[in-house]
Amino acid sequence: MKSADIGMIGLAVMGENLVLNMESKGFRVAGYDIDGARMKQFAEGRAKGKNILLTASLQELVATLKKPRKVMMMIRAGAPVDSVIDQLIPLLEPGDVIIDGGNSHFPDTARRTELVESKGLLYVGTGVSGGEEGALLGPSMMPGGSPAAWELVRPIFQAISAKVADGATCCEWIGEGGAGHFVKMVHNGIEYGDIQLICEAYQVMRDGLGMSATEIGDVFQDWNRTELDSYLVEITGNILHFKDEDGTPLVDKILDTAGQKGTGKWTAVSSLDEGVPLTLITEAVYARCLSAMKDERVLASQVYTKPVPRRKGSKRAFLEALRQALYAAKIISYAQGYALMRQAAQTYGWHLAYGNIAMIWRGGCIIRSVFLAKIKEAFDRHPELENLLLDEHFAAVIKDLTGSWRTVVGWAIANGIPVPAMSSALTYFDGYASASLPANLLQAQRDYFGAHTYERIDRPRGQFFHTNWTGHGGDTASTTYNV
Amino acid sequence: MKSADIGMIGLAVMGENLVLNMESKGFRVAGYDIDGARMKQFAEGRAKGKNILLTASLQELVATLKKPRKVMMMIRAGAPVDSVIDQLIPLLEPGDVIIDGGNSHFPDTARRTELVESKGLLYVGTGVSGGEEGALLGPSMMPGGSPAAWELVRPIFQAISAKVADGATCCEWIGEGGAGHFVKMVHNGIEYGDIQLICEAYQVMRDGLGMSATEIGDVFQDWNRTELDSYLVEITGNILHFKDEDGTPLVDKILDTAGQKGTGKWTAVSSLDEGVPLTLITEAVYARCLSAMKDERVLASQVYTKPVPRRKGSKRAFLEALRQALYAAKIISYAQGYALMRQAAQTYGWHLAYGNIAMIWRGGCIIRSVFLAKIKEAFDRHPELENLLLDEHFAAVIKDLTGSWRTVVGWAIANGIPVPAMSSALTYFDGYASASLPANLLQAQRDYFGAHTYERIDRPRGQFFHTNWTGHGGDTASTTYNV
Repeated sequence: MKSADIGMIGLAVMGENLVLNMESKGFRVAGYDIDGARMKQFAEGRAKGKNILLTASLQELVATLKKPRKVMMMIRAGAPVDSVIDQLIPLLEPGDVIIDGGNSHFPDTARRTELVESKGLLYVGTGVSGGEEGALLGPSMMPGGSPAAWELVRPIFQAISAKVADGATCCEWIGEGGAGHFVKMVHNGIEYGDIQLICEAYQVMRDGLGMSATEIGDVFQDWNRTELDSYLVEITGNILHFKDEDGTPLVDKILDTAGQKGTGKWTAVSSLDEGVPLTLITEAVYARCLSAMKDERVLASQVYTKPVPRRKGSKRAFLEALRQALYAAKIISYAQGYALMRQAAQTYGWHLAYGNIAMIWRGGCIIRSVFLAKIKEAFDRHPELENLLLDEHFAAVIKDLTGSWRTVVGWAIANGIPVPAMSSALTYFDGYASASLPANLLQAQRDYFGAHTYERIDRPRGQFFHTNWTGHGGDTASTTYNV
Repeated sequence: MKSADIGMIGLAVMGENLVLNMESKGFRVAGYDIDGARMKQFAEGRAKGKNILLTASLQELVATLKKPRKVMMMIRAGAPVDSVIDQLIPLLEPGDVIIDGGNSHFPDTARRTELVESKGLLYVGTGVSGGEEGALLGPSMMPGGSPAAWELVRPIFQAISAKVADGATCCEWIGEGGAGHFVKMVHNGIEYGDIQLICEAYQVMRDGLGMSATEIGDVFQDWNRTELDSYLVEITGNILHFKDEDGTPLVDKILDTAGQKGTGKWTAVSSLDEGVPLTLITEAVYARCLSAMKDERVLASQVYTKPVPRRKGSKRAFLEALRQALYAAKIISYAQGYALMRQAAQTYGWHLAYGNIAMIWRGGCIIRSVFLAKIKEAFDRHPELENLLLDEHFAAVIKDLTGSWRTVVGWAIANGIPVPAMSSALTYFDGYASASLPANLLQAQRDYFGAHTYERIDRPRGQFFHTNWTGHGGDTASTTYNV
């Protein structure tokens, strides 16, 4: 009976595809779903004739597993995960591993790791990226949790995960507690940013240059043969060329309202908690919120008139400048995302291998791209790199791109075409590269109205001064009023 | 013995000043602080000869109060508030009121209101703005909590709060539960935004136009006689004119690193939770984070060279354009803040009187300004106004300003001077006034890689479509994979 290598709880499309992926790599997989009809359909359909054992209960599932047992959940994030963990704990023995492959929020995973470890078991919370197709053919995987679990799950995880051209596997151990789900969250945030940048470039071409969907699709196909070579740019080309039944571009028929919930928002909130400027991804989240306000936007568009866009110079040159602006902003987005991971690693005591994370993302997942190889190389050169912008490769690239980047953003600003991600990336870059920001005035204001004190450039850091700016009121610094 | 109108717990500078303010309006105030030395100093100092009764314990404090008792806490937000509430509950009787005047997070206030009401008591969580000086001379106050408490605390609160020129008092009931502290939080977020905008204008003049602190101070003094007339612009003029002991501007000696914590961050997080684009305030929070990265910025400034700013046209005309850009961005900031309050009111079931809120902020607090009267008027015209940008006054103003606004932001973008708040306000405005955003492409992408479905412009809303974009894979829409 104890013949299965791993058990899967939850056989919706992601779980089912992961089971089929594992089986195809030679593993014997046991499966269980609370929905008996779904299991029956799977048994009589895609699982038929395969080395897959469907079981009628959690007890039975656990009874089929080789020790130490590995039980993986692919179920809805939130309370269901806690519930299944509670049911599993009494069924398992010390050394067994519970795995959560869903999109759980990383603090939940940290909490569950502690709970499960306190019962003598091991826990893995792993990001699984790549959607349905990735789950079936090779996802990008970001496991974290109990370090001792890694050697137990590694053979299965690395067998099923995506591989890139040089043979590297898109699955490496991320770190303790919630590290795996944290990195998956940042991945999703970066995905929000990448998508928003593509959308802004599309809007500049559509509304600024008056290009058709097909023409814009051609541009994205061209771009996919440059440094922008990536899954998202590739599918954008495909989408823009896709025709509806009437022969016109389908994309032109789609309503421009997008939802935002979950991981993109979590990434933005996490950056605020960590005090790391993550301006581009946050603008991407807000852009989705704004897109959802369709009726209000239509109303506002009747109140305000847009400038009529006028292009400067040749179209070909402008399109190349646009490509460069997109590339520059993308570098900023990743620089911000990596800075967030770096700060979170300090906060949570993780030892993140930043180069490995870039490598994991190179295949299988939505943000996979050639560009990530450059990030891997940067962290190979400087494992403790504070910010990608300080790496010599990216510094050289950014220097080449800034002229075009300023031109395109300035043009969009002048012509009323919103490019919130491209422009927030640029103002971040200009702030980051400023030895002096105007926060001296800000500190003076806070000291003026709240006696918050300030430091001085002509005194050692850590010495705090208060000025009686008005001549009345006290000289005592405040410690109670926090703005 | 039962002679005091209100009891104050916590006699640090804010509590002490509120006590003195109340006493000066004819109320008899009892005070208690856990720090006996502080009480002694107060008794022998500023409280001497005044109608103030200092007590040795919470029991004694409560015993001095007229019924129904009103006990106010001015103590550190967080656990201390919970602790004092727990101590007060057994000492009080049904109908008594516990008041929290600190900077508590609004969900805490909602929770405490429920707890205190479950004991038969009443609870008030009130924002108190204006710092030490406001507490003494007239703060702006934003009370919420148990509605039945309002008539009990109103005479004291409205007596001590700030008054504006037309005699209106800067204290009105905000709403149930955490409404008061929510509105105070948004006030502080707006304060972050106002400060950041002033800092950006300062930086444009300092780094872009090469002006001295004194010259810039003159400009802010001029601006304070325009629509920008406000406390923050006024003190900015004073600060820039303030000389250090050696006769040079003190502001030039202050280190440009600012802290961010607390209410600004809470406002940004709340906007993400509510799905309301609050781009300007969030950029202001991030700008503080970036300012704190001084060493990294200095390093980056050595890697990257800034453009040498070149001004177009006359200095006088450019300064007027800069003023207009600041004014336009400020309108956006308030429009976003009010949109957040509007959404939160729906989420939490509050009936916020938006005009009253503008009126409350007109005096006493850090963001007090003439401008707020215009907001009051807009909500008097349209109590259910969805967004300030849809009000005819602000629409007319914004239309006048957009030319200058685009010029200044475009100029800063071209010249490498970071104006994250001014530019994010502009990209928000351009998105808000766009009937069509590029989210149609975004929805197509999500449907392509995650079968998320989309709506169509040629079909009724609420009908969802999925396309098999690649010709392979299934036609089934996904409901499990959320990006």
